[in-house]
Amino acid sequence: MPEFHSIIHFKTISFSQANNTITILDQTRLPGEETYVTLRTIDDVYTAITTMQVRGAPLIGITAAYGIAQAAQNMDRSGMIVAADRLAAARPTAVNLKWAVERMKKKLKTSTNDRNALIQEARAIENEDKQACHRIGEYGASLIHDNTTIMVHCNAGALATSGIGTALGVVYTAFLQGKKIRIIANETRPVLQGARLTAWELTRNDIETCVICDTMIATYMESVSAVIVGADRIAVNGDTANKIGTYNLAILAQYFRVPLYVAAPMSSFDPCCNSGSDITIEKRAEQEIRQFNGLQIVPVKARVANPAFDITPAGLITAFVTEYGIIDPPFVNTIPDTLDRHRKGTT
Amino acid sequence: MPEFHSIIHFKTISFSQANNTITILDQTRLPGEETYVTLRTIDDVYTAITTMQVRGAPLIGITAAYGIAQAAQNMDRSGMIVAADRLAAARPTAVNLKWAVERMKKKLKTSTNDRNALIQEARAIENEDKQACHRIGEYGASLIHDNTTIMVHCNAGALATSGIGTALGVVYTAFLQGKKIRIIANETRPVLQGARLTAWELTRNDIETCVICDTMIATYMESVSAVIVGADRIAVNGDTANKIGTYNLAILAQYFRVPLYVAAPMSSFDPCCNSGSDITIEKRAEQEIRQFNGLQIVPVKARVANPAFDITPAGLITAFVTEYGIIDPPFVNTIPDTLDRHRKGTT
Repeated sequence: MPEFHSIIHFKTISFSQANNTITILDQTRLPGEETYVTLRTIDDVYTAITTMQVRGAPLIGITAAYGIAQAAQNMDRSGMIVAADRLAAARPTAVNLKWAVERMKKKLKTSTNDRNALIQEARAIENEDKQACHRIGEYGASLIHDNTTIMVHCNAGALATSGIGTALGVVYTAFLQGKKIRIIANETRPVLQGARLTAWELTRNDIETCVICDTMIATYMESVSAVIVGADRIAVNGDTANKIGTYNLAILAQYFRVPLYVAAPMSSFDPCCNSGSDITIEKRAEQEIRQFNGLQIVPVKARVANPAFDITPAGLITAFVTEYGIIDPPFVNTIPDTLDRHRKGTT
Repeated sequence: MPEFHSIIHFKTISFSQANNTITILDQTRLPGEETYVTLRTIDDVYTAITTMQVRGAPLIGITAAYGIAQAAQNMDRSGMIVAADRLAAARPTAVNLKWAVERMKKKLKTSTNDRNALIQEARAIENEDKQACHRIGEYGASLIHDNTTIMVHCNAGALATSGIGTALGVVYTAFLQGKKIRIIANETRPVLQGARLTAWELTRNDIETCVICDTMIATYMESVSAVIVGADRIAVNGDTANKIGTYNLAILAQYFRVPLYVAAPMSSFDPCCNSGSDITIEKRAEQEIRQFNGLQIVPVKARVANPAFDITPAGLITAFVTEYGIIDPPFVNTIPDTLDRHRKGTT
């Protein structure tokens, strides 16, 4: 699939076996600076994940996997288990992180701490994500008409994965099929991933992008033919944790009768969560809202709430787009079926 | 009504007849600095309105009225008419601005350019607004239960008027009646009036306030018993122009079956607008979204949209709270009736 990879002109993550270093694109510096940072220790990896130098559910899973492989050079097995569990808890909502760490721990247990085996496992996680993005893009593009406007939230793009992205993977694929697509990117407060990251990667590929504030969604929804978002964790009944504001967006999409698609790999589905109420929502630091670039926004005496994710009830979701195809309602049947196929490895 | 004025510890606007100066609280510096600025010329007044040093539909009307009175000292009548029309167009959506300017022009025509008469008229506009806020507060407080959480958007407070505010006038009145009220203030991107202004004035009065990002509205709506917003222009059918994000908010309130009240003086109702499609929506500079405190947020190649207001369809509004009482549906009957009473001066 060379044409799909050629569209992405940056590398979110790479691992050097010779140097035992992980290099990441520092997403906190975008769009102003394209800066790459080298992670040399498990503490570096932990900090990169918590400060959102790397973010996006699939990508933080891949980063943690490389972090564990990297640690094999100078940690014993019990130290690695502790470090792995700490990484898994670095951000509690995206299940991909826990999933990738569990997979690495399993390899750690079965491979007698062989560094090469761990590196191979991390590379496998990275490559599978790349493939999943490709398939999600192919399946999702079938839902996208020519000459149309799509609304996206946060960043579920190449920057969130090791491939072409999930929600934006659909956009890139439709674009490469020759479809004319205009994107409305919601700014996505408080961390502004839509404005800073999604607009950056789309416009680098000359995809027409307009950034709006989250307050403007209703105003522009009438011009939109579909909303596509990513996911951080999907319960078995279809309830979906995703970046804060997705729940707003899903209600607004329903009001305007615009379909809402959730594009995500199977690693974002959590067989242990029966519904959204089983999902832990990360609460991030107040400073993300209280200040901006050093300027005080919120007076000291006011309280601030900062949940980083919300739960969109399954009933507001039109369909899921996965590497196993489109999952339509009723999700209580179709999601367990797809999880079964995934477990058995039948695509 | 001394108890109502004692709650406000700042003065949004004051006019010195002796010095012929207008002093305003510079709202662009809040919450960090409480700075007062002196306006000496009609150009100062124009700039203060366009840069939002003063903002809020009622307050920009009052500011323009004083600007015209101030100009009487060194402008001839035809110059004043030109200057007045320029002020009226400084911000196109809030009808109070046009309404106040028209009232001053009428006085200008009937008073042979008597400076004192113009000052008296501006003072009358200021005082009527103060009274209107008081009455809106009284009527609105009857809708507010004890021990409850209210959501507000943007700033329709004392900072937007010469009195205790419209939406926040309701909050202050209920608070002074001894009701326990918690406020959720939506941040209100892009200019952040909810975070910067509403949280500032409420917490100065020890009203419990929590600021959330606009992306978090759905998450917190379930804990809210009412939403109260202000208005910039209300059409005869009840369609309401207000700060961008109000339309989102109204749809979300309806989804969660939370009542949405619009608190506004009769000067915000426009008898010349039959419906929302007759209302001009101000589009403000892209820089309000592209940058924040000098930091680039949106990449150069991305477009940006910045409508400052949206139109909430009448069907999403539970009731209007005015100085003439609560206006219930069907608005196509009740709004014209109230406009008639207002025209005849019967409260």
